[in-house]
Amino acid sequence: MAEQVRAIRTRRAILSAAAKIFEDRGYQAATISDILTAAGVTKGALYFHFQSKEDLAQGVLAEQDQRIVVPNRVSKVQEIVDVTLLHAYRLQTDPMVRAGVRLSMDQMAHDLDRSGPFVRWAEVLVGLLETARTQGELLPHVDPPETADVIVGAFAGIQSMSQAICDYRDLPVRVSALMRHLLPSFVLPSVLTSLQLGEHRGADVYAEAVRLAQAADESSA
Amino acid sequence: MAEQVRAIRTRRAILSAAAKIFEDRGYQAATISDILTAAGVTKGALYFHFQSKEDLAQGVLAEQDQRIVVPNRVSKVQEIVDVTLLHAYRLQTDPMVRAGVRLSMDQMAHDLDRSGPFVRWAEVLVGLLETARTQGELLPHVDPPETADVIVGAFAGIQSMSQAICDYRDLPVRVSALMRHLLPSFVLPSVLTSLQLGEHRGADVYAEAVRLAQAADESSA
Repeated sequence: MAEQVRAIRTRRAILSAAAKIFEDRGYQAATISDILTAAGVTKGALYFHFQSKEDLAQGVLAEQDQRIVVPNRVSKVQEIVDVTLLHAYRLQTDPMVRAGVRLSMDQMAHDLDRSGPFVRWAEVLVGLLETARTQGELLPHVDPPETADVIVGAFAGIQSMSQAICDYRDLPVRVSALMRHLLPSFVLPSVLTSLQLGEHRGADVYAEAVRLAQAADESSA
Repeated sequence: MAEQVRAIRTRRAILSAAAKIFEDRGYQAATISDILTAAGVTKGALYFHFQSKEDLAQGVLAEQDQRIVVPNRVSKVQEIVDVTLLHAYRLQTDPMVRAGVRLSMDQMAHDLDRSGPFVRWAEVLVGLLETARTQGELLPHVDPPETADVIVGAFAGIQSMSQAICDYRDLPVRVSALMRHLLPSFVLPSVLTSLQLGEHRGADVYAEAVRLAQAADESSA
């Protein structure tokens, strides 16, 4: 047990170091030996967890996948909004999420397959959109895979623009504006009027998700 | 005159070399000496045109600004669509435009001000949106700067996702889908029905713009 905890901590320390090095130098210029030095672990420890630079990068990329889960909502459109605003909040506040997103946007990382996060985020949204359609929340013409791709791609650019202009300070406002611009094209007007998508929604959803996760931990202990 | 032509050619050769080096290595890792070698010009020639690495990067960034101008349209919403689809077409076909866009998305370029292209594109769109509003093409609640920022940011992400997934092959389809998702939130329904935003629209607008520019050159010669 103690060994397992140690292994998890070592893996985490290596990923944090890798995230920092990839952010500072970009994927192309980063080397495993930079990451080794920053992590302060042995070569053996690093190669036990990760086989290659690409493998390290995939580990960092996976950090933006949802480990903090949005609570189920009756309206699946609200759940889509919550997933998006929560991701914006985590991007603003969690350095590992930020590193994952930036790496997925590193267009100079020529030999790194960066499609994973785009594809996984789109899958999450396709699932929610299909349930929303079954529940009668969407306009009749909607094609879930197309709409999911538009949301994921547009979000990626909005975060990049927010970082370039003001280092993420206005990210919740921009993502909220994005959702207000996209939703009318695929959601029924009667559903639109009851949505919550203010700029503080992301922080609220985060607090709620953390509270629920703690309650679940306590009841299983 | 011959000297002026030579200077323009040299500047262009340096920018092409800089674009290539920035794309290959990322902004952080690229050096002026890499760019000198790739351009095959003297140090003196390079410093005559560009003072620093940042200056070279700003030159590449500016390449995505519109030198090919969309012809005036009666509907300013159609002109917004045309500006967007033309940019997608140029991104797919012109290596210098591509290098400029990628550099503006290089989130690892820490000491480079990448806000310029975002801000300039937003200004172009704000102007068009304001005219569209005056002409009565928009819904009454529209805030042109907010909508312009959403379009610019969303476009930036859509192109990045298209590159990550299939090296821009599906870019016109994705940008067309983006516009279909954004327009209903700010354009009057009666205007929406007359818009042309198919996936070949970008190529058509490009051909039209080039034809008009050639005609203007001939009539002034």
